[in-house]
Amino acid sequence: MKTLIKDCCIIKMTNENEIIKKGYILIEEDKISKIGEGEYKDLKDEKLNIIDGEGTAAIPGLINTHTHCSMTLLRGYGEGLPLMKWLNEKIWPFEAKLDAEDIYIGAELAALEMIKSGTTCFLDMYYFEDDICKAVGQSGIRGIICTPVIGDDWQQRIERFKAFYKRNNGSFDGRIINMLAPHAPYTCTRESLEQSAKAAKEMNCGLHIHIAETLDEVETINKTYGCSPVEFLEQTGIFENKVIAAHCVHISDKDMEILKKYNVTAAHCPQSNMKLSSGISPVSKMLALGINVSLGTDGASSNNNLDMIEEMQTASYLQKLSTSDATALSPYETLEMATVNGAKALGLEKEIGKLDVGMKADIVLIDLNKPHMVPIFDVCANIVYSGSGKDVKTVIVNGKTVMEDYVVKTMNEKDILNSVKKSVENILSRQ
Amino acid sequence: MKTLIKDCCIIKMTNENEIIKKGYILIEEDKISKIGEGEYKDLKDEKLNIIDGEGTAAIPGLINTHTHCSMTLLRGYGEGLPLMKWLNEKIWPFEAKLDAEDIYIGAELAALEMIKSGTTCFLDMYYFEDDICKAVGQSGIRGIICTPVIGDDWQQRIERFKAFYKRNNGSFDGRIINMLAPHAPYTCTRESLEQSAKAAKEMNCGLHIHIAETLDEVETINKTYGCSPVEFLEQTGIFENKVIAAHCVHISDKDMEILKKYNVTAAHCPQSNMKLSSGISPVSKMLALGINVSLGTDGASSNNNLDMIEEMQTASYLQKLSTSDATALSPYETLEMATVNGAKALGLEKEIGKLDVGMKADIVLIDLNKPHMVPIFDVCANIVYSGSGKDVKTVIVNGKTVMEDYVVKTMNEKDILNSVKKSVENILSRQ
Repeated sequence: MKTLIKDCCIIKMTNENEIIKKGYILIEEDKISKIGEGEYKDLKDEKLNIIDGEGTAAIPGLINTHTHCSMTLLRGYGEGLPLMKWLNEKIWPFEAKLDAEDIYIGAELAALEMIKSGTTCFLDMYYFEDDICKAVGQSGIRGIICTPVIGDDWQQRIERFKAFYKRNNGSFDGRIINMLAPHAPYTCTRESLEQSAKAAKEMNCGLHIHIAETLDEVETINKTYGCSPVEFLEQTGIFENKVIAAHCVHISDKDMEILKKYNVTAAHCPQSNMKLSSGISPVSKMLALGINVSLGTDGASSNNNLDMIEEMQTASYLQKLSTSDATALSPYETLEMATVNGAKALGLEKEIGKLDVGMKADIVLIDLNKPHMVPIFDVCANIVYSGSGKDVKTVIVNGKTVMEDYVVKTMNEKDILNSVKKSVENILSRQ
Repeated sequence: MKTLIKDCCIIKMTNENEIIKKGYILIEEDKISKIGEGEYKDLKDEKLNIIDGEGTAAIPGLINTHTHCSMTLLRGYGEGLPLMKWLNEKIWPFEAKLDAEDIYIGAELAALEMIKSGTTCFLDMYYFEDDICKAVGQSGIRGIICTPVIGDDWQQRIERFKAFYKRNNGSFDGRIINMLAPHAPYTCTRESLEQSAKAAKEMNCGLHIHIAETLDEVETINKTYGCSPVEFLEQTGIFENKVIAAHCVHISDKDMEILKKYNVTAAHCPQSNMKLSSGISPVSKMLALGINVSLGTDGASSNNNLDMIEEMQTASYLQKLSTSDATALSPYETLEMATVNGAKALGLEKEIGKLDVGMKADIVLIDLNKPHMVPIFDVCANIVYSGSGKDVKTVIVNGKTVMEDYVVKTMNEKDILNSVKKSVENILSRQ
């Protein structure tokens, strides 16, 4: 069975000027087999599942390159406290009570929220990773699920990762991929970082890490190692692998040179950086230097949602503000961060992040028939500045329709909301 | 006929601790007659129109204290240009082509967008004011519609205002109110400001003005008058009236003292200030000094929507970022800016901005049964940080239901979107 999306505007993300005002996308199996302007000519000769794209814009599925998916369960928990008090008294004690079932439910909620807001692939860092793989795999979207390395038992965690990787990597038609996630330079020892780097090389997998999120971190690393977090990580061999570095808020020119040299991706999380008073990442500068910068929401407790379209707006406006240049980070460049650059970050640039023949059919249709979306002078500006995840009408991942006309097909929304309620009640009742 | 909203969470905005987990609101005519916890007891004895509020939170209708409503027609027009090039080459030539009918359609679109995102009252500054009053009046929401004073014909504009005021102020059951809007200290002469102040005093109406939006403005005023915009305006007598000052980005401690002394409201527009690289208003500092700070979206071309819930999130995060204090501007304080403080700004604090007995029934029900809105640890945080205008389910203004269960009752959405399309085509075809 083939699927045809007809009469939609198409933002291919292959080139800023290559926006098709009205065209079609043909999907065969898991891939895009044809894409073009106007009408699809062979309409009568084939058995087609047709999706009417009239009044919508097709964009590549959005790629969230930094989150902690099951933290959806902690959305809004302990608001209004200073960072360390919030972590020590609220977040960490709550997390310590979570069991595998809670994590599964939290991951289901995250996947549901992501589908509804147009995210088709995400990079995660949270524990009970097998349960996350299962929830995400069943939801129909792609997940790069990582084993976190942190704490005294880091050696066991790295060992556990190897078996976990063999069990899960490439499962669910290749939609589940696994990476290793040494937490951060200030929470991991030098040895655990070196061993993480070595394990990643051995498994030929990527690494997901937090870098230079706060000034405190930079000061701590400087006191301990006499250099910046980026310089320290270079010494550990971490960067000799594919690395996605979340945040990169407080980085020097020298740090940027290192990131560039090793093709490290900076995963920018503007809403989290604002909410936690972390600071402003020099995104425009990094992009000008040729560093790959992608976009992430961070966990739901520091955002407080997983809406990548909202995140794009914030990313763009924050660079305009911080560079005093109203032309900084255009809607198209911001869309690139959330699609093309995200794919490149994950090493999936030949499969996702663009709408083109031969690419995986990860497609999101944005509803343009809404009061806040008209008139349409600049469709990218309307999506990034006027829109939000709630304008996502239809979502296709790996050729399969996971949401059509606002109705999620792969998950029962009501059941999940009820499970979340029960799960949270259970967690709070535990000592 | 009375209307009962039952089984909803109620955020009265009378006090941070006074949140009713499950309760009712009884509406008689245009006012709230009863409000309380649990079930409304006299249910059997009365003829009631019942709205099921299960799974929603009731908040006061949001008050947008700075916008240019018909600029919805310019949404996304001329993106990507530096400010003065954008104004000179795009915005102003486009605006010069607008006629009364375009403005009417643009105001309809704005009112529709505002209803759908929970705004029930707004303060405007745009021309063809009679047409705006008509569109807004018919939409069912409240509008404080102003006559702009700018340019060489300022005297005629002030004269015209007096007749305009007599025609429109208090019309549509009191939902339309009029004020005078001297544009800004750098676009108005000293004399026109003095005469605006005098006219406002004579008519006993408020003044709506832009103040200290950009550094350029501050420098221009300093060169011309040897003082700050706020100090200059004090000399003109403007502040001897009720004044809503949009932006207040670049203001000194002395300026703040003056704003406080005259009870001037600062209408904060964070998304516009970010998008146009204007800067960050010292909102937390102003609030600490006891200055009334309200919230506005500015026009749709510098935002690019009229969503006050999105604006609240940005306002809160921007203060956390700029003050390096993650506890700055809490969700509740931000809600105050968009309700209580907005009402105070407009001199309507005895009528709107709170949910309480005797207040006008301007009520918004927020849908909490959505993946991004669960779990609910802190309902204010969920609304301000996780939600957006698109979670607004039902809207009541002046006791009348203008939207119920996502369906706008006072306007035909499809017709308006079509009118906008035709209007824009017409405008672009004009020489």
